[in-house]
Amino acid sequence: MFARPTGCVTLLSDFGLSDPYVGLLKGALLRASPKVQVIDLCHGVPPHQVAAGAFVWGAAVARFPAGTVHVGVVDPGVGTTRRLLAVAAEQCYWIGPDNGLVSRVLQTAGEAEVRAIDVEHLGLSAESRTFHGRDLMAPVAAWLASGRYGFTALGPRISDPALLAPSAATPHVLWVDHYGNLVSNVLAAALDGVRGVVVGAQQVPLVGTYQDVAAGALLAYVGSFGLLEIAQNQGSAAATLGAGTGATIRLLRP
Amino acid sequence: MFARPTGCVTLLSDFGLSDPYVGLLKGALLRASPKVQVIDLCHGVPPHQVAAGAFVWGAAVARFPAGTVHVGVVDPGVGTTRRLLAVAAEQCYWIGPDNGLVSRVLQTAGEAEVRAIDVEHLGLSAESRTFHGRDLMAPVAAWLASGRYGFTALGPRISDPALLAPSAATPHVLWVDHYGNLVSNVLAAALDGVRGVVVGAQQVPLVGTYQDVAAGALLAYVGSFGLLEIAQNQGSAAATLGAGTGATIRLLRP
Amino acid sequence: MFARPTGCVTLLSDFGLSDPYVGLLKGALLRASPKVQVIDLCHGVPPHQVAAGAFVWGAAVARFPAGTVHVGVVDPGVGTTRRLLAVAAEQCYWIGPDNGLVSRVLQTAGEAEVRAIDVEHLGLSAESRTFHGRDLMAPVAAWLASGRYGFTALGPRISDPALLAPSAATPHVLWVDHYGNLVSNVLAAALDGVRGVVVGAQQVPLVGTYQDVAAGALLAYVGSFGLLEIAQNQGSAAATLGAGTGATIRLLRP
Repeated sequence: MFARPTGCVTLLSDFGLSDPYVGLLKGALLRASPKVQVIDLCHGVPPHQVAAGAFVWGAAVARFPAGTVHVGVVDPGVGTTRRLLAVAAEQCYWIGPDNGLVSRVLQTAGEAEVRAIDVEHLGLSAESRTFHGRDLMAPVAAWLASGRYGFTALGPRISDPALLAPSAATPHVLWVDHYGNLVSNVLAAALDGVRGVVVGAQQVPLVGTYQDVAAGALLAYVGSFGLLEIAQNQGSAAATLGAGTGATIRLLRP
Repeated sequence: MFARPTGCVTLLSDFGLSDPYVGLLKGALLRASPKVQVIDLCHGVPPHQVAAGAFVWGAAVARFPAGTVHVGVVDPGVGTTRRLLAVAAEQCYWIGPDNGLVSRVLQTAGEAEVRAIDVEHLGLSAESRTFHGRDLMAPVAAWLASGRYGFTALGPRISDPALLAPSAATPHVLWVDHYGNLVSNVLAAALDGVRGVVVGAQQVPLVGTYQDVAAGALLAYVGSFGLLEIAQNQGSAAATLGAGTGATIRLLRP
Repeated sequence: MFARPTGCVTLLSDFGLSDPYVGLLKGALLRASPKVQVIDLCHGVPPHQVAAGAFVWGAAVARFPAGTVHVGVVDPGVGTTRRLLAVAAEQCYWIGPDNGLVSRVLQTAGEAEVRAIDVEHLGLSAESRTFHGRDLMAPVAAWLASGRYGFTALGPRISDPALLAPSAATPHVLWVDHYGNLVSNVLAAALDGVRGVVVGAQQVPLVGTYQDVAAGALLAYVGSFGLLEIAQNQGSAAATLGAGTGATIRLLRP
């Protein structure tokens, strides 16, 4: 669980890429430790959508080197008294606000240790009331990634992190990607005996991959996240179906 | 003022991220010095808007390690005889066209040294008349960042860099961010006794942070740039107010 | 032709930047070799547009350090039996699907060696049927870049890579950039005696650079790719001319 940090830090946010915010986050990381290697995981989380950010962090599990420090700044509660968490799980570290962002990681992890970052004890204070990513999370992540502080030194262990409701309940769309593909919360393992899905009034067959249907046809398949996706071969399922994040999906069994 | 370069180079431009331009700029940096560490500061400056670029460079002051080399390619005059500048200020270096891009850095710096890059003396010539960022600025920045040339070797000292008008004059919007927040030119220090602002016909209270107002309400506050911002809690102030870059702001005093 | 890899890897794709795909590609590279240096060449290729991707790879020739490994994931045929290629050309390496993506590189290269990546022999298998960039191309690229495998060990030499039709035929628009500039397939060398171009019904003069025409005027010039471009000084030629990718261009000779 406690893999040795390697200096690799990833960034997840709802900042988009048109502003200087991501750049300034990287500046804060480098000021705290000039040797960290910074990777953009994703900055396209829709503004303030913690559940979408939680999906992306879930998708990052086992996809980066052991010891990677993941920083997540989807933080609509910035400036309130919400805690900042440091989590050790799935061979990596996860630094973010205590708002459920780490839910999917915690819900799939075999074991995990969650700590509330003790900002004052670490000698930090937020210069801004609206950018704790830059002022607090970045230095903590850089120190952890570079070995200046060990994980257990970041603050006291806690047992009550905020968690989003388990996503297993109703099948629905978690993320709409750039191609208009609809990524659902349905795990591949839950598809035994399923022959198709219904989105809106439209029935879509479950197949192996794009080439199993004609150009322009809709298809359901297990995508690269290991989750059920709905796509249109050479088109946008989101546009064709008029469906977006949160849309419900019905699984068809014979 | 002359901090030792550390190999870190940041990039600012109005290139956006849909084209290969940023990638090719990085290629030119790496060809000149394979060891530089390149960070994207911001590529979302609206096309040709030097004042917006100057705002972003101002926001980068003291936010990167001492010795960082900042490259700025907001260069509507590329291909004319405008000079290229190398500036040492605020513990960092700033390489860009002589069009006012470095104004905000120079206007806040305690001391600064400005040099006109002597392209011919450095053995450079522009392959293209429209991409001096790639052909000239990138190699100069890489050489400075890697220590191949010292700052004073880049060209003669000058005393007449182009400067934008000081922004202190009329309060106005400098930048509209991804969330629809309006970032103004009003420094926190200028807000003594101010109880709110007026944008268009709308009065907005000055508060501490988002949570001081109800969901959907407008607020004015000191944002992470140390400047007055106007936002809407869980909404877009730009959309709600119909206000954009350049919009004037009136400060309300009791 | 076989430059020693330096650890630098570039990424080209049609992923856009709103999803986690680029981040996950980088994770896969770092998992295979934690020391590679990853540069985003361009992720703004329009979805599934192999020809546009081929243009960008052509534009990268000689723009990165010798030994750079370029990875290209514009892969509408992912999941079919199309091969994956490794190409040594122009002092660099090019890893991508066998769908013509490397056409422009091969068509300009003095000499080149093309190999079909032997995925099984390298011990790889695709976890997903839709993301071979992450599952197959990224590890191969990281191993090549880090020296774990030499180029000739990646698979058997082949002589029949898929090639797009040579672009020299009819002058047309290859790429529309962020500024609305129209980048054509016409090489600078083909412009001897040309005095202007016609796009749609509009005649545009061939000049040296932007400042040779008035603000708001259209111009044709040799752009930074070494290709004929059509732009509007302080405007968008694409919007003004209503022209996009594929639009034909007529060269005017006296």
